[in-house]
Amino acid sequence: EERKKSVKEIMIIEMLRWLVMFFVGLLTGLVASLIDFCVIQSTDLKFSIIKKYVDKCVDNKCMEVPLLVWVGINGGLVIVASILTACFEPVAAGSGIPQIKCYLNGVKVPHVVRLKTIVVKVIGVIFSVAGGLIIGKEGPMIHSGAVIAAGISQGRSDTFRKFDLRIFEFFRSDTEKRDFVAGGAAAGVSAAFGAPVGGVLFSLEEGASFWNQALAWRIFFASMVSTFTLNVIQSYIKGIPWDLSYPGLFNFGSFDTTSYSAFEIPIFILMGVLGGLFGALFNQLNYILTKFRRRYINKSRDRVLEAMIVAIITATVGYISLYFNNSCSPMVQDTKDNTVQVYCNDGQYSSTATILFQSPEDSVKSLFHESKGMYSPSTLVVYCLCVFILACWTYGLYVPSGLFIPGLLVGAAWGRFVGLCLNYIFPDVGWVDFGKYSLIGAAAQLGGIVRMTISLTVIIMEATGNITFGLPIMIVLIVAKWVGDIFNEGIYDMHIHIQGVPILGWEPSSVLTNLSAKEVMSHPVSVFNMRESVGRVMEVLKTETHNGFPVVEDYIPNPLDSSINEEMSFGTYRGLILRSQLIVLLKQRVFGDNGDQFYNLSTKDFRDAYPKFTPIRQIHVSQYERDNCEINLEPYMNPAAYCVTDNALFPRIFKLFRALGLRHLVVVDKHHQVVGMVTRKDLARYKVTRKFWKARIDELLMSTR
Amino acid sequence: EERKKSVKEIMIIEMLRWLVMFFVGLLTGLVASLIDFCVIQSTDLKFSIIKKYVDKCVDNKCMEVPLLVWVGINGGLVIVASILTACFEPVAAGSGIPQIKCYLNGVKVPHVVRLKTIVVKVIGVIFSVAGGLIIGKEGPMIHSGAVIAAGISQGRSDTFRKFDLRIFEFFRSDTEKRDFVAGGAAAGVSAAFGAPVGGVLFSLEEGASFWNQALAWRIFFASMVSTFTLNVIQSYIKGIPWDLSYPGLFNFGSFDTTSYSAFEIPIFILMGVLGGLFGALFNQLNYILTKFRRRYINKSRDRVLEAMIVAIITATVGYISLYFNNSCSPMVQDTKDNTVQVYCNDGQYSSTATILFQSPEDSVKSLFHESKGMYSPSTLVVYCLCVFILACWTYGLYVPSGLFIPGLLVGAAWGRFVGLCLNYIFPDVGWVDFGKYSLIGAAAQLGGIVRMTISLTVIIMEATGNITFGLPIMIVLIVAKWVGDIFNEGIYDMHIHIQGVPILGWEPSSVLTNLSAKEVMSHPVSVFNMRESVGRVMEVLKTETHNGFPVVEDYIPNPLDSSINEEMSFGTYRGLILRSQLIVLLKQRVFGDNGDQFYNLSTKDFRDAYPKFTPIRQIHVSQYERDNCEINLEPYMNPAAYCVTDNALFPRIFKLFRALGLRHLVVVDKHHQVVGMVTRKDLARYKVTRKFWKARIDELLMSTR
Repeated sequence: EERKKSVKEIMIIEMLRWLVMFFVGLLTGLVASLIDFCVIQSTDLKFSIIKKYVDKCVDNKCMEVPLLVWVGINGGLVIVASILTACFEPVAAGSGIPQIKCYLNGVKVPHVVRLKTIVVKVIGVIFSVAGGLIIGKEGPMIHSGAVIAAGISQGRSDTFRKFDLRIFEFFRSDTEKRDFVAGGAAAGVSAAFGAPVGGVLFSLEEGASFWNQALAWRIFFASMVSTFTLNVIQSYIKGIPWDLSYPGLFNFGSFDTTSYSAFEIPIFILMGVLGGLFGALFNQLNYILTKFRRRYINKSRDRVLEAMIVAIITATVGYISLYFNNSCSPMVQDTKDNTVQVYCNDGQYSSTATILFQSPEDSVKSLFHESKGMYSPSTLVVYCLCVFILACWTYGLYVPSGLFIPGLLVGAAWGRFVGLCLNYIFPDVGWVDFGKYSLIGAAAQLGGIVRMTISLTVIIMEATGNITFGLPIMIVLIVAKWVGDIFNEGIYDMHIHIQGVPILGWEPSSVLTNLSAKEVMSHPVSVFNMRESVGRVMEVLKTETHNGFPVVEDYIPNPLDSSINEEMSFGTYRGLILRSQLIVLLKQRVFGDNGDQFYNLSTKDFRDAYPKFTPIRQIHVSQYERDNCEINLEPYMNPAAYCVTDNALFPRIFKLFRALGLRHLVVVDKHHQVVGMVTRKDLARYKVTRKFWKARIDELLMSTR
Repeated sequence: EERKKSVKEIMIIEMLRWLVMFFVGLLTGLVASLIDFCVIQSTDLKFSIIKKYVDKCVDNKCMEVPLLVWVGINGGLVIVASILTACFEPVAAGSGIPQIKCYLNGVKVPHVVRLKTIVVKVIGVIFSVAGGLIIGKEGPMIHSGAVIAAGISQGRSDTFRKFDLRIFEFFRSDTEKRDFVAGGAAAGVSAAFGAPVGGVLFSLEEGASFWNQALAWRIFFASMVSTFTLNVIQSYIKGIPWDLSYPGLFNFGSFDTTSYSAFEIPIFILMGVLGGLFGALFNQLNYILTKFRRRYINKSRDRVLEAMIVAIITATVGYISLYFNNSCSPMVQDTKDNTVQVYCNDGQYSSTATILFQSPEDSVKSLFHESKGMYSPSTLVVYCLCVFILACWTYGLYVPSGLFIPGLLVGAAWGRFVGLCLNYIFPDVGWVDFGKYSLIGAAAQLGGIVRMTISLTVIIMEATGNITFGLPIMIVLIVAKWVGDIFNEGIYDMHIHIQGVPILGWEPSSVLTNLSAKEVMSHPVSVFNMRESVGRVMEVLKTETHNGFPVVEDYIPNPLDSSINEEMSFGTYRGLILRSQLIVLLKQRVFGDNGDQFYNLSTKDFRDAYPKFTPIRQIHVSQYERDNCEINLEPYMNPAAYCVTDNALFPRIFKLFRALGLRHLVVVDKHHQVVGMVTRKDLARYKVTRKFWKARIDELLMSTR
């Protein structure tokens, strides 16, 4: 497929890549700002209404009224998000990070980068966050960035078939599109957390296989533009136009005054262990729930209903905890204006109400930064428990929902509780700072759930705007990952595996070292001759699910033998042809009566068909053509496609797939005869379950879609 | 070569990898602390002596005495460093970053990770920095980290042949060692700048090909341990034991109070352009100088002499500029205690003297942070010019010398000058902050010289301990790289290319897209039969410089034909055998009279020989053995070594080499017959010179060592 290009053309493409990345960053920044603005406005409006009712009803003993109003508003908002997601675009549910991860890994997930998806995602996340669910908007922002990147780089939309810019035609291939999607995801992280470096690392850690400096640099550029756009808009919203020090949408606030000592490191390590344990518990509960959901909650109606129920329960739980756990704190000078009095005496305010009457992000910030007396231990414990259970229940609902903020919330709550305990044990020392322990707890909990390491460290560092806590955060994240990995895998990987997607990890599991290509490969395979009859092509395409086929010489199809004889070969290997190419060839009727071509197809014809190829069943070829016509595959096949010999070992094959982003690898014997094929699914089939140093190999059944 | 290993063994190896990384981080931190401590002590001692003489002589009109003392001390210190380097280990000269870059790229540079090298490097850098040369100690610290990593991972030393721990035997292979060296380099960066994330990115940007998460994470661990060790030691030296907020050896100080606005971005871009121009000029001058040095300054004596001359001139220039450009500033409250009065009136001090009478690092810091009146424009211009010329002259001398600090110094000086100019144009605005412009200038200048992007951004961000300036620094570095790349390449790549090392870039140049394997490969190649006579093996090893040979079937050597017929093939491809393996086989006399083996070698035998294989000329085989004995290569060859067909295109081959770290790739035709071999040198031979959109392909002559 690598056609010869002139030097000038290559340079223009190079320039266009930068241009595309610029627009990716710009649009991602704009979309992130839009989401943020809408969420803040609607949340503010909602809380001002409810607060009014609460203030009025505390005296009049009509506390059920604000509950009903609250439940009503939340339920109404969430039902919009849920109907949009469940009925129009189910792939927009959740954070989108597992899908992006699959996409970057080289697995095609249907609909994941469509225009419809982003529309549903953006509107849905605004409604579901405003609807009081315990979710964040960061994951959906990352997904949005990825969709924007895919959309811009293709210059046309599948939803509006007419719209086709026709300028970015070069980018209509899987690898190019994937590179841009990596840039879009990074721009999303960059906008969400004000973490451009973290964004680049996120894309690399989650997706990219081959660290390509030019690509990493373009990704960096997109992240930079995205942060810049967002900062400019934010500076306008905040009323200090063009003052650009405001970093990102969700910054953790400043930790300048605090420091740490070496003797605190064991405490941090213990907190990392806690984070790992809680994270593993979270994932395990969510795993059970997801399994349950897949089995029993299949219809759109049920999905919307479940989202509704969770929304109502979230609102009610918050309200009840407010009612029963009404810890009052005296009003001090630096208390913010979002305090609520409720049942407290004059001059006091309810800390429980305060933590509930704000968006989850503001709650994280107040857990980090509020002064000592703000939250009582009981408030923290109750809050932490409620949020943990609700967040676990919420993730997986059919609404767009991010997982970062819930994780941080839970962790910040128990982290602050640890700080309180330490303060109780050592009442007179200066180093017990609640904000510090809150931050470490948040990092530990989030790390225990998502099991990211380097990129998460950098994201948190950039979000705190401070590198003093870099080292403790690293330690905590590493410990949390180690502890969590004993029990189960990260929540994103878990969701990917539940869906049976053939994703490849970073390294082949060490216990699989001794498998050879012969044991891993699919055998028998369907192969084509250099000139193949239309009838056989049609037949194979209809019966086989593979997406690539070896093209060989000297092969006489003999279906009786091939399935029996393991040693049998399929002719001498010449090249590889893709299903998509065959379909285009059939559709354009590039076959001749006695082997002569009518005309030749150019790369452009294949590009125009990308990425939606007609299913084979919709292509009609007459019986005469089937029997008498032949396709000459030689000009279209990839003669230089990689192949390995059948004695190649598993790690070597794995490395080829991972480093080069392969989808198919032909296996040949020592006479260059095709003997089998290795696909992604063959590699991902072996799942190693490791529990306390014992390893078990399972062969998984992969979904065949 | 991939022998079967048990699961348990693999786990132990995995644990050992972490252990090695821990010690790499620990030792790197210790060595960095040692260098820092010695440099600070000796510099303080030196300046206190000179200051005493100056203070005495200002009144007594004997200003030639302190000059002589200064020149004497500096010359004496530098001569030690220079003799050590030039006579004992020339590879310890310079920053070591080009060598590490080559090493990580997969090219073996002799002596670069030896124990002797680190001893010379550490002692040398202490003496040369103390000797007043305009150099930094950061590059040598990075090199030291790499050597430590190589040493520990091998568990033995080549210099002391007796010493062999025998525990890390698994790591005696090129790839394993390379991974550890990447960790060591990262630990070095981490210690030098307090930038653990920057260190990881440095290793990835400069070296690693395949972003392997497990490896990246181990590298991160080493960086973390290194920063931690250093911080603990530093906290003791500073007298506040175990208070760990002190970040790294060279931190830029705090920029907390300053901020920037969007309208300053065009100014930053202009400064980036300036940085690119000055950087390109620096590199061009250094290129000419290096060419000159390679031709005329070859002997150790001349090299020591040159270093001496530079040391004397550096001291003299400093002294003269002090004499003529004696700008006096009034003593204010917050002036530090390192001020020197010289010719100024009482109550005033000389800013020129102050900038000269401290280590380069302190100069950078005072350029960043001193108050407004500290440096006059003329001081800055003169200082900037002197440092630029001297730094350019110094880099390439036979002393260990880093380039980061000189680059930052030059940039900080002209950056502060830009700030002064802006202050002159807009005298009444609040946003002109000298420290800010100084920082931006420093980033621009350093970026223009070394052309690093992501890693340098993160290093500077971590060194400032603040992410507010992340965006401007990124912009400036990208602009500086773009502008600089128009004229020439980064200084490290330049030095690598001058030495003719076959290093591979990140991507194949776009103009080479259309070359195929056939055009790139070496042809003819020497091949071996599965059973090859000892005589022929000896002969081929003596005449060929290749390090890998294809093993084939059905090949009758026919030297007359092979050189003529381009189409000729060399038998059916079976596997690849390395020169080092053949040498071990010959040395251990694994050959038999009529083809029977006497005994078999295990992997351990090959490992023990690593990395010093006896040269072929030192292996003696009798004439009888040559004629009558055969080696059976089949058990030792790598049967699954990658091969490509002869129509594979250049980018595909390049990607294989780069992503998988290959050294040899056998080219076969469509009948699986060997037709040629591609080596690193074949790929690196094509150098594309690009000047203003015109591309020219040069075939380079690579050194054959």
